[in-house]
Amino acid sequence: MTYWINGIAGASPSALDRGLHYGDGLFETMTCRNGHLRFAELHWQRLARGCEQLRIGSLDMDALRREAAAACTVEPSIIKVIVTRGVGGRGYAPAEAGTPTRILLRYPMPRDPDEFWTEGVSVVWSGVTLAGQPRLAGVKHLNRLEQVLARVELAGSTDAEALMCNADGHVICGTMTNVFIVTGHRLRTPRLDQAGVAGVMRAVVLREAEALGVQIEEAALDRTDVADAQEIFLTNARIGAWPVRSLAGAPRDVGPVALRVQAHLHRLDH
Amino acid sequence: MTYWINGIAGASPSALDRGLHYGDGLFETMTCRNGHLRFAELHWQRLARGCEQLRIGSLDMDALRREAAAACTVEPSIIKVIVTRGVGGRGYAPAEAGTPTRILLRYPMPRDPDEFWTEGVSVVWSGVTLAGQPRLAGVKHLNRLEQVLARVELAGSTDAEALMCNADGHVICGTMTNVFIVTGHRLRTPRLDQAGVAGVMRAVVLREAEALGVQIEEAALDRTDVADAQEIFLTNARIGAWPVRSLAGAPRDVGPVALRVQAHLHRLDH
Repeated sequence: MTYWINGIAGASPSALDRGLHYGDGLFETMTCRNGHLRFAELHWQRLARGCEQLRIGSLDMDALRREAAAACTVEPSIIKVIVTRGVGGRGYAPAEAGTPTRILLRYPMPRDPDEFWTEGVSVVWSGVTLAGQPRLAGVKHLNRLEQVLARVELAGSTDAEALMCNADGHVICGTMTNVFIVTGHRLRTPRLDQAGVAGVMRAVVLREAEALGVQIEEAALDRTDVADAQEIFLTNARIGAWPVRSLAGAPRDVGPVALRVQAHLHRLDH
Repeated sequence: MTYWINGIAGASPSALDRGLHYGDGLFETMTCRNGHLRFAELHWQRLARGCEQLRIGSLDMDALRREAAAACTVEPSIIKVIVTRGVGGRGYAPAEAGTPTRILLRYPMPRDPDEFWTEGVSVVWSGVTLAGQPRLAGVKHLNRLEQVLARVELAGSTDAEALMCNADGHVICGTMTNVFIVTGHRLRTPRLDQAGVAGVMRAVVLREAEALGVQIEEAALDRTDVADAQEIFLTNARIGAWPVRSLAGAPRDVGPVALRVQAHLHRLDH
């Protein structure tokens, strides 16, 4: 594991960084493959949108892009980018002229069992209900205690993921993935205007639907919609797509759409 | 500003600390006065409850108490204690045998205008609606983007605080304070089972109600309850109590109960 802070290898974060004090920042988890960062433009666009939403100004995006490209020298690896609002005084109010902190971390690619892709994964319903916060919905920000608690609940289990709902009973996402379901010839994924992270791979699936020859829509989905679907699959920037082979203990078929999407995503780099 | 990490002055946090990656931790803001930390036991109790709620195990509470006591050598000052789940791998799932990180920071006591205590503060309704998350309600955790956004909105204003409601229209708390209202001979403060931070000074007011000769209760309060109250005051561990002299532009009387509570709190150390 190697890391850089504001471009300096092995530098240390400040004990006063607002990322540490308040989770006041954003992150991206990117894959280094074929000599570059996959879907880099989509990651940078989401990061820029997140900065706007959190009103984090003056991020040196050019420097960040250069640093991330320079870090992409080990394959396959994960490049995690953290951007915080920077060092601040005491209290929630940001300093007027704060400078965002850029943190880059390069991790070895985690090794999941091959059958997660070929035979699918087993998932459960999470006991953690996602809070609804339209001001932060969709944003990949650093306030992730709900996901941490959901993963704590999964500890020791063989389930690869837990699906999380909001208080209205709408399915939103997995702890680290987005959810897609297949019903008839239609692909659907939860709307993320109240909670959840709008994943880059989710955006790619939405973009590629036409090329894949499927109708696709963002929708309000409840547990029954998901449980009754012909297929369920999960996406994120690292895994691409995992079919779901069991939900809450009920076995399911791994269907053709999930595998077709998976293969299509695997071929893409941008 | 002086700080210590795991007891070592000026040490740096790890770039891998889960506090920085996920806001995976807790904090306490304590006042150093008369040679000791005010209400120290209440702070430690809340921190311990927070650790249970987040399932952060094996915090060396004795070391933390010693370090905090040793830091209390400048008066008046603020001692901020941050406890994170510690250094972790990549991903939301905590390491099985992680060791929490203890961060102590000593800040000079901020200088608010004297009239905030004597004549009261001006407050507004925040445009940020608090999300409801029973699993985290009351806990002083590090996921504080809602409070940051609410303070961003206040930038440049002369309002000292913004009152925050949840999506049901219940008043929960200020960005950095708890709220009390006086109606007849009764003191009421919002229930915090869905959102908000259960402040130490709030706990002191609840404890001291009998000594103060007032009836007190935690209740569901809406904006009208607050706006129609005879008195409103705000509390936190640093300020004690500030009466509210104006709410959303409407002037209000600073009443006798707020000033009596304020004087009483000021005399207490434990």
